[in-house]
Amino acid sequence: MKTAINPTRRENFSEWYQQVIIQAELAENSPVRGCMVIRPWAYGIWENMQRELDQRLKDSGHENAYFPLLIPLSFLQKEAEHVDGFAKECAVVTHHRLEQALDGKLVPAGQLDEPLIIRPTSETLIGASLSRWVQSYRDLPLLINQWANVLRWEMRPRLFLRTSEFLWQEGHTVHATSDEAMKETINIVDTYENFVIDYLSLSVTKGIKCSWERFPGAVDTYTIEAMMQDGKALQAGTSHFLGQNFAKASDIHFINKKGIKELAWTTSWGVSTRLIGAMIMTHGDDNGMMLPPLVAPIQVIIVPIIHSEQDADDIYAFCDKLRKQISRKKLKGQNIRVKIDKRDVNGGEKKWYHIKRGVPIRIEIGKKELEQDLVSYSCRNNVKEIIKIDTSVFLKSLIKILQSIQVNMFNNAKNRMLENTITVTTIEEFRQIFKEKNAINKFVLAPFVDDERVKEAISEYSVSVRCIPFVQPKTEATCLFTGKHTKTWALYAKSY
Amino acid sequence: MKTAINPTRRENFSEWYQQVIIQAELAENSPVRGCMVIRPWAYGIWENMQRELDQRLKDSGHENAYFPLLIPLSFLQKEAEHVDGFAKECAVVTHHRLEQALDGKLVPAGQLDEPLIIRPTSETLIGASLSRWVQSYRDLPLLINQWANVLRWEMRPRLFLRTSEFLWQEGHTVHATSDEAMKETINIVDTYENFVIDYLSLSVTKGIKCSWERFPGAVDTYTIEAMMQDGKALQAGTSHFLGQNFAKASDIHFINKKGIKELAWTTSWGVSTRLIGAMIMTHGDDNGMMLPPLVAPIQVIIVPIIHSEQDADDIYAFCDKLRKQISRKKLKGQNIRVKIDKRDVNGGEKKWYHIKRGVPIRIEIGKKELEQDLVSYSCRNNVKEIIKIDTSVFLKSLIKILQSIQVNMFNNAKNRMLENTITVTTIEEFRQIFKEKNAINKFVLAPFVDDERVKEAISEYSVSVRCIPFVQPKTEATCLFTGKHTKTWALYAKSY
Repeated sequence: MKTAINPTRRENFSEWYQQVIIQAELAENSPVRGCMVIRPWAYGIWENMQRELDQRLKDSGHENAYFPLLIPLSFLQKEAEHVDGFAKECAVVTHHRLEQALDGKLVPAGQLDEPLIIRPTSETLIGASLSRWVQSYRDLPLLINQWANVLRWEMRPRLFLRTSEFLWQEGHTVHATSDEAMKETINIVDTYENFVIDYLSLSVTKGIKCSWERFPGAVDTYTIEAMMQDGKALQAGTSHFLGQNFAKASDIHFINKKGIKELAWTTSWGVSTRLIGAMIMTHGDDNGMMLPPLVAPIQVIIVPIIHSEQDADDIYAFCDKLRKQISRKKLKGQNIRVKIDKRDVNGGEKKWYHIKRGVPIRIEIGKKELEQDLVSYSCRNNVKEIIKIDTSVFLKSLIKILQSIQVNMFNNAKNRMLENTITVTTIEEFRQIFKEKNAINKFVLAPFVDDERVKEAISEYSVSVRCIPFVQPKTEATCLFTGKHTKTWALYAKSY
Repeated sequence: MKTAINPTRRENFSEWYQQVIIQAELAENSPVRGCMVIRPWAYGIWENMQRELDQRLKDSGHENAYFPLLIPLSFLQKEAEHVDGFAKECAVVTHHRLEQALDGKLVPAGQLDEPLIIRPTSETLIGASLSRWVQSYRDLPLLINQWANVLRWEMRPRLFLRTSEFLWQEGHTVHATSDEAMKETINIVDTYENFVIDYLSLSVTKGIKCSWERFPGAVDTYTIEAMMQDGKALQAGTSHFLGQNFAKASDIHFINKKGIKELAWTTSWGVSTRLIGAMIMTHGDDNGMMLPPLVAPIQVIIVPIIHSEQDADDIYAFCDKLRKQISRKKLKGQNIRVKIDKRDVNGGEKKWYHIKRGVPIRIEIGKKELEQDLVSYSCRNNVKEIIKIDTSVFLKSLIKILQSIQVNMFNNAKNRMLENTITVTTIEEFRQIFKEKNAINKFVLAPFVDDERVKEAISEYSVSVRCIPFVQPKTEATCLFTGKHTKTWALYAKSY
């Protein structure tokens, strides 16, 4: 059977991914290497993600603010590990105007005394504000979030997954005690987990990063790791317990109830437009994108099928009535997002346009539907099946259909992860799994000791330690690479 | 009477403005000169503005997208007037990493082949995408908007009004004909006018910019000019008819219905966080910020007044019940935003905290209110008056109270503008108005000819031509500065 996307996932997963992005009009490369243009369809997805996650963060007491794009070099240097971690990928502003050179060309002028870095993340800059805003225990906890663009110069860019500029939210919180900061760190990784499961139908493994995979400057980094259809891992969100490292660097102190000055405890955490890439690689098929209904910019598309001009008015009127009826229905408190595709292109072209973009439900309305008061619809997760049903019955069952698409997509993702996660206790098994060419890569759960020898040993397999999962096997075993006995198991995988 | 803000508006308007921003915790300067930190209270205002304007733009068919932060110098140069207009205020990225110099210091490294400019506006970069997206007349009109940060290096920064980095929306549209593009340009300036009137209670004069006040590269710029309490003008939003200038620069062509390739017509338009500054200077008083209810992050604040610990639980329970009742009411389709201030600070401090921030309605609940089932409330636009009223009556009238605050604030702004707009036909009057020190500056409506001699002549008064208003006096007169006879009248004013 001919598919809309060439190559197929099986033929070339990586090229399939690029093609889905092009065909679904999600994004394109910009003239600046590594930066992307997020087209309206993908930006609509991002807006839906933002609205939902933003509400969840607000419901748990977080407030949004906005901090400057540019960070003085001296600020970035306040935390030594932090600047080391980002130095190789910083875009540096050195001048503040352009002037005409003798040859008439425009050249940078007005050199700055101190170079400015475009934020790769904002701990050091936001820390300066937090240190002013926090004076007393009464000001704590201070729970700030910002939605912003950040930039990390990327040598091997990939749309949504690794772009020099990307959009994200970054939370920054200050607490009176270590316990409270740790609780916040965990609450956030839980919030991320629930959000990507409920809303994006992703399946993830939640855990803690090993020492060499931590955020630069953090004491601990918590993560959710999603499995893509090729069995590779994608880090979908991280939450960092920063201990007192950044409080020290930014001088964030408070007067406690006893009147004594104390150093505060901080956290930071973020998710980004990379989640759009995660959805493509989790849900997409050989016909393009497939969107979970809750996050789809259009949940139901109505395609009028007009074979004769004399039917046009009646068919449009029928579509319009249907659109109004659908738009009054609600899914999770939001009116259904429904549109009629009235463009001046043929029905077949329209059909594939919406399939490739992943619209959950596509309705076709022609003369027959009009005459018999029917709806012919097809769900994106089963494009071959076209269901003809009385309009009134369709309207009654619409919400259930959308809910079941949402749940089915999650179940598929979850089952795929369960089927492809393997427990391993010998180096031979480990080698076999990662050296062989598999149709689907595996998540490997194996004994682990936090020792740099492990990092070295696994690099030959192009494998990394994704996390030490919260849910652990209850057995002891021997670390494959150090021979040490351990109760700890880690998730090893190839990754994006 | 003691006021919360010192100095008062009369004593020093400019310093009063800075103090309101500090005391209302709206924003602060950042370590990077000219860049600001937008604190949660002001960011909450911005989020409300965004939600409302975004919906209006979507309702008129615009879609959001996101384009890169960085613009290659060669792109900016595609439109000659445009690059001239922005060259003096461009932040330039020249390197993409940091490395350690011999003395151990971190220095910029990895010099770029071509300098990159942080977008001061995005016509040239977005044009490159639009030129790919537009192929046929079927693709038109193409109506794109983006919410983004932009950067224009500012030598004399002022919080919200003139900051190097600011947040805005920038719309970019492509049309098949000049008429359609012009219609869009006008529709947008009308949308801006309605938005700032209905939602922000600002009073504005709508018009067209004269030749030397146009956006660099535009054929025509339309504007709304608001009057601040000191009688100065503030440009609150602009909409540009770009003709075919940028279509030519970015090669935006389409195949028309006859199969012939044509050059397209474009527009661009924007409003920014400067609108927050406009609200402070329009509505603020000597006690701080005053917020129109529709845009206030908190519309009703409940302050428990606890004199004796034994009443605390009952008072809190009363407040909580009241909060729930209020939050079920709706203003323009949105639930009322209401909070209880439970902070561990005294009642007087809380009261002034919310007055300074401009919360429209403040309720105090103490033992008496509890016992008599009363609400004691005060409206921000009349802080001296405290009204005691049965809870049930208050709940019934709440929406009307909020609506009347919104309308009163607009009427005040409008009356101020009417009272301080003067029609002038002689240079003597003009001189008198702008040379004398007035408590409130004036908007002067005077005959106008679009001639650079006017620009020169008025510069000695530190006055600029704000616009040629849509609503014109129906008389002819003589231009004050060229002596030419004209039917056209312009609005002259001092401005921010």
